[in-house]
Amino acid sequence: MAVRVVGFDGDDTLWHSETRFHVTQGEFRDLLKRHVQDVDIDERLAETEMKNLSIYGYGVKSFTLSMLETAIELTEGRISSRDIQVILGWGKRILMEPTELLDGVEATLREVCGTHDLLLITKGDIFDQESKLARSGLGDLFLGVEIVSEKNSDSYAGIFRRRGIDPAEFVMVGNSLRSDVVPVVGLGGYAVHIPYTVTWRHEQVPEDELPRQGWRRIAAIGELPAVLEGL
Amino acid sequence: MAVRVVGFDGDDTLWHSETRFHVTQGEFRDLLKRHVQDVDIDERLAETEMKNLSIYGYGVKSFTLSMLETAIELTEGRISSRDIQVILGWGKRILMEPTELLDGVEATLREVCGTHDLLLITKGDIFDQESKLARSGLGDLFLGVEIVSEKNSDSYAGIFRRRGIDPAEFVMVGNSLRSDVVPVVGLGGYAVHIPYTVTWRHEQVPEDELPRQGWRRIAAIGELPAVLEGL
Repeated sequence: MAVRVVGFDGDDTLWHSETRFHVTQGEFRDLLKRHVQDVDIDERLAETEMKNLSIYGYGVKSFTLSMLETAIELTEGRISSRDIQVILGWGKRILMEPTELLDGVEATLREVCGTHDLLLITKGDIFDQESKLARSGLGDLFLGVEIVSEKNSDSYAGIFRRRGIDPAEFVMVGNSLRSDVVPVVGLGGYAVHIPYTVTWRHEQVPEDELPRQGWRRIAAIGELPAVLEGL
Repeated sequence: MAVRVVGFDGDDTLWHSETRFHVTQGEFRDLLKRHVQDVDIDERLAETEMKNLSIYGYGVKSFTLSMLETAIELTEGRISSRDIQVILGWGKRILMEPTELLDGVEATLREVCGTHDLLLITKGDIFDQESKLARSGLGDLFLGVEIVSEKNSDSYAGIFRRRGIDPAEFVMVGNSLRSDVVPVVGLGGYAVHIPYTVTWRHEQVPEDELPRQGWRRIAAIGELPAVLEGL
């Protein structure tokens, strides 16, 4: 069956995202080091984020709330509310930054949308994601946008059902093995993995748990049209 | 054309929501009164929420972040981080509370879903809304769930297009004139307004801006089946 629909992840596939968190996390580390020594701040923040995931879900607001919680706990309440204000400001800054597209994204999408239906399939905060898409200027290239709370078999199967897509005619393109590759291949679709320079540890998958076939890895999105042609 | 699809708002239509914010806002007022006098705390919080709406969007996390910002600004940084921690806890408490259905909701939905397709159409935080629906035990009664960042003409038109719904065969049921009634009637659908005891001022509409026809008001969801039968 010929490939008809191509799904794209947004964060770190079409536009930079993790680097923004990364920079802020560095500033957070520097701020807390003024109060506490001999603590792995990144580790503690990661623990708080994981603990809060089932309450807050993904996204910048969740990240901001987890930074605040970690800061108060690690300093045992000694952090000033002025520093809390600084952390609140970082969250807003991330939300308001311009959408910075990865190299080759616009040209590739313009090429692929001439031959395939494009879907943006992303998780996270609905408000933030719609805002990023709007500011990216790419909105018109997509037939539809699907924002889900988790990318797993159930959520992809729901999208296929609602949109009348046969998995055999679907290719998912993204930077996360856990969210973009494993569930799609498991449903009988094809996946193209484009690694990003920084991967949140939550998104990593041990190599031996990866499907043997049904997907491939490319170094940059510019290689996608050739891959689609060869399928 | 016979009514085929009934859309339901979630917050304050199917389950209590605004009262939860209301209780927390009272606690917030009491906490801040220990620090500041002669300030309309509710007014200042409402201003912060409105200012942040285009950055944060709707939902509990946005509300929590706006409470924190207001608290630090109003106390000029004098609020302790222990109090900040208390406010963070309120946000989590709201997110984790059981879904409390309004009277008559379950019986009405079970009756209506025998004769119509039901959609849940709600705005806010995708993670929070899906979690509330899951905990409500009503998930199986709905043909689909649409979580949008704003309920306006564009978002309703998008839902109609994606799901092949003619507005003339659609009824929207909700507590907000601004979000559930005005845009749907404007597109040619019918709306049923069920006022809730507390309405966020942002959702209010002056009576003279309301459509003259195409909608009606009922006092409780239990009256809905009779309304649908009469259409």
